[in-house]
Amino acid sequence: MFDNILQQIVEGTGGGIGAVLMGYDGIAIDQYFCPVVDADLQLMAVEYANVLKEIRKAAEILDTGVMEEVSIRTERFHVIIRMINQEYFVALTLERDGNVGKGRYLLLRDAAVLREALA
Amino acid sequence: MFDNILQQIVEGTGGGIGAVLMGYDGIAIDQYFCPVVDADLQLMAVEYANVLKEIRKAAEILDTGVMEEVSIRTERFHVIIRMINQEYFVALTLERDGNVGKGRYLLLRDAAVLREALA
Repeated sequence: MFDNILQQIVEGTGGGIGAVLMGYDGIAIDQYFCPVVDADLQLMAVEYANVLKEIRKAAEILDTGVMEEVSIRTERFHVIIRMINQEYFVALTLERDGNVGKGRYLLLRDAAVLREALA
Repeated sequence: MFDNILQQIVEGTGGGIGAVLMGYDGIAIDQYFCPVVDADLQLMAVEYANVLKEIRKAAEILDTGVMEEVSIRTERFHVIIRMINQEYFVALTLERDGNVGKGRYLLLRDAAVLREALA
């Protein structure tokens, strides 16, 4: 069920290459990757789980309110991470020139569906 | 000189409240804050320096290329971080409903100027 939602997000986003629904402990619940991808997106999500823990800690120290979305652009990829709840997040990886706006929109739209399904 | 550039970025971005030019070691070179701000933006930048070190480490492990831009949205703020070079970054903090697109554009435009000035 989760993989259908993830597939829709990836296929609906121009340049989308994969999405992972994952806990902050780095354990994936579900994932969908485009068939032809030469990057280890699961390893990527595990690494970013560590990053998110740091950001969450920073947000708590700074009292800037709950972290909602993080977007990271590197030379090769664009990763958009949307928090689902206190335990889970979705990481969507796009080609560098992918449609970031569409990806953000689909993540925001489907976050509520994922949140309910996880409850 | 840096504070003029930072001021232009903050004032040119709708909802902009402050910008800091900082090293990954958490030491600020220069900064500009709107007069009426009740958040400790310097502490915020120091915390985010730690986060960036984690992201940079992740990008290296994952071989996804150099990190260029990170954007973090919390309940209260939106922070856009643009890498200047291997040692320095600029963090622009906006109100939650600020003009993120304009902020990203101004950071990208002025990154080259800051890079030259720092060389």
